[in-house]
Amino acid sequence: MTALHPRGVFSAALTPVTEAFAPDHALFVAHCRRLLAEGCDGIAMLGTTGEANSFGSDERRALLEAVVAAGIAPDRLLPGTGVAAVSETVALTRHALSLGVTTVVMLPPFYYKGVTDEGLFAAYAEVAERVADPRLRVVLYHIPQMSAVPIPFPVVARLRAAYPGTFTGIKDSAGDLAHMKALVAAFPGLAVLAGADPLMLPLLRKGGAGCITATSNLVAAELAFVFRHFADADRTVEVEAAQARIVAARNRAGRFAQIASLKLLLAERAGQPGWHRLRPPLLPLTQAEADALRAA
Amino acid sequence: MTALHPRGVFSAALTPVTEAFAPDHALFVAHCRRLLAEGCDGIAMLGTTGEANSFGSDERRALLEAVVAAGIAPDRLLPGTGVAAVSETVALTRHALSLGVTTVVMLPPFYYKGVTDEGLFAAYAEVAERVADPRLRVVLYHIPQMSAVPIPFPVVARLRAAYPGTFTGIKDSAGDLAHMKALVAAFPGLAVLAGADPLMLPLLRKGGAGCITATSNLVAAELAFVFRHFADADRTVEVEAAQARIVAARNRAGRFAQIASLKLLLAERAGQPGWHRLRPPLLPLTQAEADALRAA
Repeated sequence: MTALHPRGVFSAALTPVTEAFAPDHALFVAHCRRLLAEGCDGIAMLGTTGEANSFGSDERRALLEAVVAAGIAPDRLLPGTGVAAVSETVALTRHALSLGVTTVVMLPPFYYKGVTDEGLFAAYAEVAERVADPRLRVVLYHIPQMSAVPIPFPVVARLRAAYPGTFTGIKDSAGDLAHMKALVAAFPGLAVLAGADPLMLPLLRKGGAGCITATSNLVAAELAFVFRHFADADRTVEVEAAQARIVAARNRAGRFAQIASLKLLLAERAGQPGWHRLRPPLLPLTQAEADALRAA
Repeated sequence: MTALHPRGVFSAALTPVTEAFAPDHALFVAHCRRLLAEGCDGIAMLGTTGEANSFGSDERRALLEAVVAAGIAPDRLLPGTGVAAVSETVALTRHALSLGVTTVVMLPPFYYKGVTDEGLFAAYAEVAERVADPRLRVVLYHIPQMSAVPIPFPVVARLRAAYPGTFTGIKDSAGDLAHMKALVAAFPGLAVLAGADPLMLPLLRKGGAGCITATSNLVAAELAFVFRHFADADRTVEVEAAQARIVAARNRAGRFAQIASLKLLLAERAGQPGWHRLRPPLLPLTQAEADALRAA
């Protein structure tokens, strides 16, 4: 059996924005460095948590270029490249490959709802065909509560059969451990990554590949510890303690709007108020929410 | 009271695509000309029916430029410019204005779900502020079954108060006549346009401004007739007959996937097989569906 790819703890990195709501490259690069230093295996930048779909393709390309130019190894980066238009998904994916970034996280085209399995397969197949680069590794991105376009098992099966070695992983952000375990059972060799921090540990115990998660912006070290030691019989107590801190952080950030909460907590910890801003339609927490979160 | 703007029958024009799934400019221009010749007041191009969100910004710009270059008057065009990223919505809207196209149909940013009224207002306000062109007229686009981001009444009210003269209309594609009538009642001076062909007539009788609809690709003449004569006491029979043809066409196209069905019917009528193609994730009808539709 080939090794799962990708495998490890990947942070769905938050994207700091300037007063003009543009991605703040310098602050983002510093954040990526900190996440890697804390033990993340890589950065799943430009995902839902990173507000990727609030940025245009030019802004997305520029941010990825800035990170690579700053010296962060391309094989540590898993940018999101799936957008509503297949042609743009192709362009963003090719751009990543042009920088040596070969693994991407790909949302389904998310404007039309109720698309058929056949149509969803055709969209992903179109991307694979047009990109036509044997280096490409795609992590499918299942997040139906946000995309409103689930990725059904038969579509995963067809893509893996039609493009062996390309669709190597799936990020399951639906929040249902049973669904993640069913993916592991149904698709040997598929890297199933938990999209919710507290579910990485139980998923690892069932053969999962790791996580791509939001709370990792705050608890990367704990996640890295759990990932490395979950199977060590003599580390059970420490693993459970780290897991408890992960759960607590997640619960705290989940009390109000998650991305805004994570940005607030990160701003406080990093002492960088620039982290407070979000691009509309997302907004920072209200003063009352922020006070309540700080008090918690 | 100022006149409603926009007012009339606007076709949510289908977009023909080439074998490479690129918009077919020449075929599209010919289609726009036919729709105007049949009596449409304008072309609401690059909407849901036009598969706009399956095309990248460059493709959208190029198609609009081709239509204007072909000599179709810019004041007859209502392109869709609302995408997931506010920065791209700004860019597309500015581009339309640069061509003399001043009225646009604007989806809310549609990736994040469950956004607050405050966040939705902030997103539209950001567009108005950044575009900063007094010529701009925005038709809000309420289509919750597709965007999964409804536009609540308080957001409409705030936008109209904050930017008088800018947010002049709303396309209501939710398919609920009661909701359309409530909009008319709540917002005097707001142009409420039906997003479903059969609902234009009852909406006009309650003070609506017309329609932006899909079946108009096939029954533009009937819609134009209903729009011009719905209030003429001596034309009641003809108006009802036209309305019956509209309802029949809509029912026929609604039996299978609507955009694919409309493309098939248009291909047959125009004798141009190029109309058959759709860009993934949408697909043409299956052979069995196509046969059943032809037989109907």
